[in-house]
Amino acid sequence: MAQKQLVIGMFGFGNVGRGLYDVLNTISSNEAVIKRICVRDITKERGIDADFTDKPDYIFNDKDINLIVELIDDAEAAYHIVKRALQSGRSAVSGNKKMLAHHLPELIELQQKHNVALLYDASACGSIPVIRNLEEYYDNDLLVSVKGILNGSSNFILSKIFNENYSYDVALRRAQELGFAESDPTLDIGGWDSLFKLIIITVHAFGCYVSPEKIFTYGISTMNDNDIRFANEKKRRYKLVAHVEKLDNGKIIMSVMPQLISRDKYIYSVEDEFNGVVIKGKFYDKQFMFGRGAGGHPTGSAVLSDITACFYNYRYEYKRMFDHAPVEYTDDV
Amino acid sequence: MAQKQLVIGMFGFGNVGRGLYDVLNTISSNEAVIKRICVRDITKERGIDADFTDKPDYIFNDKDINLIVELIDDAEAAYHIVKRALQSGRSAVSGNKKMLAHHLPELIELQQKHNVALLYDASACGSIPVIRNLEEYYDNDLLVSVKGILNGSSNFILSKIFNENYSYDVALRRAQELGFAESDPTLDIGGWDSLFKLIIITVHAFGCYVSPEKIFTYGISTMNDNDIRFANEKKRRYKLVAHVEKLDNGKIIMSVMPQLISRDKYIYSVEDEFNGVVIKGKFYDKQFMFGRGAGGHPTGSAVLSDITACFYNYRYEYKRMFDHAPVEYTDDV
Repeated sequence: MAQKQLVIGMFGFGNVGRGLYDVLNTISSNEAVIKRICVRDITKERGIDADFTDKPDYIFNDKDINLIVELIDDAEAAYHIVKRALQSGRSAVSGNKKMLAHHLPELIELQQKHNVALLYDASACGSIPVIRNLEEYYDNDLLVSVKGILNGSSNFILSKIFNENYSYDVALRRAQELGFAESDPTLDIGGWDSLFKLIIITVHAFGCYVSPEKIFTYGISTMNDNDIRFANEKKRRYKLVAHVEKLDNGKIIMSVMPQLISRDKYIYSVEDEFNGVVIKGKFYDKQFMFGRGAGGHPTGSAVLSDITACFYNYRYEYKRMFDHAPVEYTDDV
Repeated sequence: MAQKQLVIGMFGFGNVGRGLYDVLNTISSNEAVIKRICVRDITKERGIDADFTDKPDYIFNDKDINLIVELIDDAEAAYHIVKRALQSGRSAVSGNKKMLAHHLPELIELQQKHNVALLYDASACGSIPVIRNLEEYYDNDLLVSVKGILNGSSNFILSKIFNENYSYDVALRRAQELGFAESDPTLDIGGWDSLFKLIIITVHAFGCYVSPEKIFTYGISTMNDNDIRFANEKKRRYKLVAHVEKLDNGKIIMSVMPQLISRDKYIYSVEDEFNGVVIKGKFYDKQFMFGRGAGGHPTGSAVLSDITACFYNYRYEYKRMFDHAPVEYTDDV
């Protein structure tokens, strides 16, 4: 079932790009090699012997390159790279949740039209294979809800505040130093990063795409000492929770907001940069998946799983989107 | 990619069979219908309107039936049913870990020869999709170890002993009443059920089949008051842990035995009939999956996921077994 070796043209060499590079070098894969890496600043010293370029054409015009791996921060640029990849008949792997959350319907159409794969498990929850499991395993009418801590940096900040009495600013700076926070931290602490992941997850969970502006989103940036004291008094912790649930009327509701979580909940003990997702179904009750949701190497490993899946001709089938009656979104809770 | 409707001939209508029947009826699937159910005692009143038979031929000779779902206790009989299914050119879904742990190499060969699917995600950890994730997502050289609580009944018993001061016998009886323990409880408390699951998991984790008699297996049946007192003094809990790990020399070790688990371990908080599996890799660190590992409805849901996968022509590819250099087992720790 395997195809010929994947020759990768990569965009971006930040935290995750570097992680992928390390991971691929460690396992010395026969399935995939990185041929060329497109970066913004080609003069920067990176200490490795690879073929860097700052010209996208130098990747797209190379007929040997049959897979585009896009790991850059800029959502707009990422969109054009992935679109161009699919239109050129190449499969693509992307980690850019902001881009995906805004452009998924068009990109799904494009990948089907050009008969190529677009994989992005790395975009939601780093090393936890939540998309793949929703797509492959929980793809039936038993699914009731998906709820989780999807953003490693805001969770890291909350953990430091609640467990180690860090101030908000110090905790944020520490998260950035460790490489958990995106270059623009408002995406993390404003809840947007969680929202983007929730939108992607919902496509695979319920076959329904909902655009970002429709969904109630409230981050942790306004959290203050009173909130923290209140939570401690109640023996609870604030967690930034993303949530999609199917109502009895068949419609789905979605939200991202801080919630007071009691000790008996699975996500109570999700600390630091970890992510945790609770998948609830009618008969199997709750499934809990837990792992590193951020960081170069864990996310790089997730990108590797997408690359391996490409090698074995895997594609998301969007069964719930195309084989079933459409599910509707409602904000009428 | 979907195929025509699955018409199921089912063997067994115990706890899991009944669970699957309920689950399928609830979602009123277009993908699969149960046409006939073969049971040992056809006179037993089951309160449902289905076509029961006690003659396997009545299923195998029915040309409409294109999928065999085997959910019986008797491993020897299960082996013959699955073998006959594959040889008749039908795909099969099985939940019988004992049977699979003994006959996997032959059955893998048969399913490939006859170009059909044999799926058994329900056989290991009930509703947790551990096999599917190892097969699809962690199928690379980064995988280091899989460790977990794989047996719901012995874990239920240990929970009752440690948290509620039940005696061993009372806890066992309670597990059986609730349908977590197999009809022969020695499989559970002797560690054999965990062992069988570990063997199946290892095939998908490391591409290596190891027969049951080679692996060190020690259950919880000899646990006594002194052990419990000792664990409590050390603020730890005994858990029955199944474990496979790749050593630096590339060989794998395997074991099933009770271990003293400290509070900082993920599996410490896996209680009652739940299962928990920790998947460890070189770069993604630890992934933890947690869910109901036993019970009719959760396991029935897992069987449904296997059936849906059959509908979409999914097969285990055993990539690590066939596409890579073989991994060897060693007991020389």
